[in-house]
Amino acid sequence: MEELIAQIRAKKSLLCVGLDTDMSKIPPFLLTEPDPIFAFNKAIIDATAPYAVAYKPNVAFYEAQGLEGWQALKHTVDYLNVFYPQLFTIADAKRGDIGNTAAMYAKAFFTDLKFDSVTVAPYMGRDSVEPFLEYEGKNTILLALTSNEGAADFQLQKTDKDALYKKVIRTSLTWKNSQNLMYVVGATKAEHLKEVRALIPEHFLLVPGVGAQGGSVDEVCENALNKHFGLLINSSRGIIYASHGEDFAAVAAIKARELQEAMARWIH
Amino acid sequence: MEELIAQIRAKKSLLCVGLDTDMSKIPPFLLTEPDPIFAFNKAIIDATAPYAVAYKPNVAFYEAQGLEGWQALKHTVDYLNVFYPQLFTIADAKRGDIGNTAAMYAKAFFTDLKFDSVTVAPYMGRDSVEPFLEYEGKNTILLALTSNEGAADFQLQKTDKDALYKKVIRTSLTWKNSQNLMYVVGATKAEHLKEVRALIPEHFLLVPGVGAQGGSVDEVCENALNKHFGLLINSSRGIIYASHGEDFAAVAAIKARELQEAMARWIH
Repeated sequence: MEELIAQIRAKKSLLCVGLDTDMSKIPPFLLTEPDPIFAFNKAIIDATAPYAVAYKPNVAFYEAQGLEGWQALKHTVDYLNVFYPQLFTIADAKRGDIGNTAAMYAKAFFTDLKFDSVTVAPYMGRDSVEPFLEYEGKNTILLALTSNEGAADFQLQKTDKDALYKKVIRTSLTWKNSQNLMYVVGATKAEHLKEVRALIPEHFLLVPGVGAQGGSVDEVCENALNKHFGLLINSSRGIIYASHGEDFAAVAAIKARELQEAMARWIH
Repeated sequence: MEELIAQIRAKKSLLCVGLDTDMSKIPPFLLTEPDPIFAFNKAIIDATAPYAVAYKPNVAFYEAQGLEGWQALKHTVDYLNVFYPQLFTIADAKRGDIGNTAAMYAKAFFTDLKFDSVTVAPYMGRDSVEPFLEYEGKNTILLALTSNEGAADFQLQKTDKDALYKKVIRTSLTWKNSQNLMYVVGATKAEHLKEVRALIPEHFLLVPGVGAQGGSVDEVCENALNKHFGLLINSSRGIIYASHGEDFAAVAAIKARELQEAMARWIH
């Protein structure tokens, strides 16, 4: 966490690059590589690392490629841990299962794959999340308010006091080792960010939905920065698929820098 | 679905065997096998197949073993599809992510691994589930009410009209291809089963929590059977870890038969 904050300060960046690497979208010339997914990720990481403080592979994209996908995921996180150990790594897995099963998922992402953090779904409650929170020096990023349309189906529904996503946040603060929590909070509505920040002034938020989904960096920073920054703003497709040609990595670096520059104005 | 109903009738069984296969819990003599997890699963499947209509590997246990785990998962579902094609297979994955990512997970479990069904979490709403529902001839099993303690944290919380798990069920019925839905409903409280059955008289329920977690077969059948049965009752550890010796498969068969006999009284 100290290291993440130091990186944010040094790079004047809150940028998390989402590695939603899809075999059907990477430049075709990479397909002759022995591990095309890793080759793509490595090029993206090397090009964007000056502007990013975190990388977030979305596990679904790797799972969809079967064993080769898992191998590529492992290569990617190993590469980050060896060559960019100061960067924060997030397994975007959105897992959620009961006690002993949750412990298995925690082992998979924290011990075997050596990610710094993993995203987790709250629906099954306390005993589905606490096994992740036990890991010291690791962060568990709980889905609170997501940036998709379906968020309205349940997350925004009113419970006893207020919307379910706030109930989730409030309840999670009572869980053991809740200091290891971070939260996914979509950038789509400024008022929500403000309300979340009021509930959890100290915790880090992982914010998707900037760019493609309509949120703006300024709006997110204005409403949700805290005294140790407390924000990671994710961009996936807007960076990694900005070009489908041989210049894909160079164009990704330009897009990453644009976002970083928008963030730098907020980091003092 | 027709095939599953025919199996239930033929075997007089609603039994789903949960393959929560944990390297640290399988009989030690299997550890010298080239693929110990698959060797264990194969023996359990062959021994219990006369009494079971479905098998449910919990994906977490395989993920926790990295690439070898994924290989074992693939071997297991391939074995089931080749040697027991009439049996229903469930990937207990509890996935949940937005549109294009959900589509990736659906591809992983339906197309690549060729499972008949997959469990999915509802928190992210419609667009996180519909990509699964598109697959014709496949079932998507939505978490409604789980059997763990943490279920009380959110699932039992009151929303506008009634508890969140009922809101989830009601809302999911409006989704496209909702006829492909099944629901996870824990066996821990009879009244909940009865209420769920009133809401969805036609859908299949996957019921965990019988045995170890306190639910009884009779109570589940009394409250939730419908005219085409509409129930799968899962048991995992009570069957697969009933013995840790060389007789593990034979003892698993005895435990599976005991449950099947309790179920047979309800199937006419």
